[in-house]
Amino acid sequence: MNLDLMRELSVSTDSKIVLLVMDGLGGLPNSDGKTELEAANTPHLDSLAAASDLGLSRPVAAGVSPGSGPGHLGLFGYNPLRYEVGRGVLSALGVGFELGENDLAARLNFATKDSSGKISDRRAGRIPSEKGAELAKLLDENINLDGVETFVLPEKEYRAVAILRGQGLSGSLTDSDPQRVGLEPLPVKPTDDSPEAEKSASLANAFIEQADDILKEEHPANTVLMRGFGMHPALPSFDETYRLNAAAIASYPMYKGLARLAGMKLLKEGEGIAGEFETLKENWGSYDFFFLHVKPTDSAGEDGDHRRKSSVIEEVDAQIPGIMDLEPDVLAVTGDHGTPAKLKSHSWHGVPFMLHSPYTLPTAESFGERTCAGGSLGVFPAEEIMGLLMGHALKLKRYGA
Amino acid sequence: MNLDLMRELSVSTDSKIVLLVMDGLGGLPNSDGKTELEAANTPHLDSLAAASDLGLSRPVAAGVSPGSGPGHLGLFGYNPLRYEVGRGVLSALGVGFELGENDLAARLNFATKDSSGKISDRRAGRIPSEKGAELAKLLDENINLDGVETFVLPEKEYRAVAILRGQGLSGSLTDSDPQRVGLEPLPVKPTDDSPEAEKSASLANAFIEQADDILKEEHPANTVLMRGFGMHPALPSFDETYRLNAAAIASYPMYKGLARLAGMKLLKEGEGIAGEFETLKENWGSYDFFFLHVKPTDSAGEDGDHRRKSSVIEEVDAQIPGIMDLEPDVLAVTGDHGTPAKLKSHSWHGVPFMLHSPYTLPTAESFGERTCAGGSLGVFPAEEIMGLLMGHALKLKRYGA
Repeated sequence: MNLDLMRELSVSTDSKIVLLVMDGLGGLPNSDGKTELEAANTPHLDSLAAASDLGLSRPVAAGVSPGSGPGHLGLFGYNPLRYEVGRGVLSALGVGFELGENDLAARLNFATKDSSGKISDRRAGRIPSEKGAELAKLLDENINLDGVETFVLPEKEYRAVAILRGQGLSGSLTDSDPQRVGLEPLPVKPTDDSPEAEKSASLANAFIEQADDILKEEHPANTVLMRGFGMHPALPSFDETYRLNAAAIASYPMYKGLARLAGMKLLKEGEGIAGEFETLKENWGSYDFFFLHVKPTDSAGEDGDHRRKSSVIEEVDAQIPGIMDLEPDVLAVTGDHGTPAKLKSHSWHGVPFMLHSPYTLPTAESFGERTCAGGSLGVFPAEEIMGLLMGHALKLKRYGA
Repeated sequence: MNLDLMRELSVSTDSKIVLLVMDGLGGLPNSDGKTELEAANTPHLDSLAAASDLGLSRPVAAGVSPGSGPGHLGLFGYNPLRYEVGRGVLSALGVGFELGENDLAARLNFATKDSSGKISDRRAGRIPSEKGAELAKLLDENINLDGVETFVLPEKEYRAVAILRGQGLSGSLTDSDPQRVGLEPLPVKPTDDSPEAEKSASLANAFIEQADDILKEEHPANTVLMRGFGMHPALPSFDETYRLNAAAIASYPMYKGLARLAGMKLLKEGEGIAGEFETLKENWGSYDFFFLHVKPTDSAGEDGDHRRKSSVIEEVDAQIPGIMDLEPDVLAVTGDHGTPAKLKSHSWHGVPFMLHSPYTLPTAESFGERTCAGGSLGVFPAEEIMGLLMGHALKLKRYGA
């Protein structure tokens, strides 16, 4: 999306927008010839489709399957090729760390170094999560770098995340992970000439040196490998770009984190899918934009379980009348990418997209990949979704006289 | 459109193109479930559709409703975000002023200034058009600025337009209009560091000072506010870009002006819609591209009168056999944007587009928003229309070996 254009044209109004995202919604035909969405019994989504604009949204580029970061950046109107979210940043968001604008994040592996200084196990024998948490705490409390605050938080097993907070940092750094055993860890090096990158490389190397010292009596996790360095991406906020007072409802930390990067307020979600919709209702009066994220569609797709994915979609379908009772001015239902059960992974395919408002041109009586393919929105880049939502909510001024 | 590519590939041939634009053609379903175009009885457009490529064209960007300027720039192949037509320029075109490449245009409001120098009425009590015309003439004859020619023409009531003509001018200027009463008018300031902007700001302020002097005995219109400064946009011409000898038929000055910006020859139009088509026939031998603009579809849409809009479309439908008798090589029928009766304003929706030539891939038996949604052209940016017209007229060389 042209964010400058949005900033120029957007106006704050009373109208309310709901963006309902079923993670990995897009699918492919299974043995019954139907996609997960087509096979699901969705009377409410279907009758909504009969009064909606339909289309297929393309996440990043033709043939390219997005991770969760770029998938959601696109949904929020940020060009996912321009605004990058590093792996370290996603890990930090995933553990619920409140990343700030001066934060440099990296993934940590606890690993094993032999007496000759070479890495003998890049995952430290996959130590249990409890041990990983204990060692992360040890580093968090004892590492002391000049001029920056440091945070170390456990992810799972041998994985953790490190954050350096301070002025003048940069994520333009190489990994210390040599990627193969039998090699010495690599020094972290700057990948550009900036003083920020040079300073950050020194800090990262000092971090590793101190960690080695702190962990020297531990076994098998006697060192750390650092990779996926990245700064907080400093996205233009929803407030400043779209004049929206936006809130997010999500059950997984990473999606909460992505929404927070865009400046959305995080709402405390209830239990399960029904609980998330309950949260929407409770907070209806306080915001004019709601991002509601449903995760289990993606998990079922990743597991290759098309029936379970259809069931999750049916569970969401049952919540549609409750949303419609709130009378949103615009309700969009889509995914951040496809996760076809047939592929058991994220996919590059067009994602079913449905937009309901008083100003639509309906073309079909059901919500599915193939009715969306024939819809009045055609196949379009996911980053245009925010423009469509804003237009249909009558929140954009006319462009030019 | 990539104008450099057009310039590289276009060749002059005998084939003839007609671009028939019904202003604000696009609509939304009304109480009968049909759009204005779908509801209209259009046997000729429908049978043309059965031998045409269909698609939906998007004017500017997702969710963005264009004004007439950007809407037409897109139709003529100019990226409407790159080529801006300022409000002053549109006003000048609207009153039929023949804007040249060195012209700086601005809108004028006649206004009332109280004895303390503050604006007490931004519209001078909405003086009648006759009075506005008289005062415009007074300024036109008496303002005398160093090194530039000045023109002042009346629009309507308290509105007029001023043009400064000279070398080295710029439209990068702030408005003098304080936007609220009880404030002093603002000095016009340059918005960039160029000497052109600085010079133009001085000239604009001198203009206002002289106008104040000329109007000092008038009441209530004793001053002018200037806003919407803009230079002639200096579009690459149709001739140089497409090797087209292009003519325009339009009944409203603004559309004539927009066509003239693109270098089209203006033809004297007959009375009403039938008269415009008569002009087309009379001039058929002399040009290879005709832009024919029909206004009342938009006016009916703005009035929320879907039946009248359908009637206008039917009136145009009746002219189709007459055009086909001329055997144009390419005939395209579309709009510059939607003006759905339901919205009573310009809209952001895809605009029905139909292209007839011997080289089409027909997909439907009728011309409507929803048959266009399923057409072989898909949903595409309006600025690509000129490329399609040129290709179907066999006026573009192959690109590359």
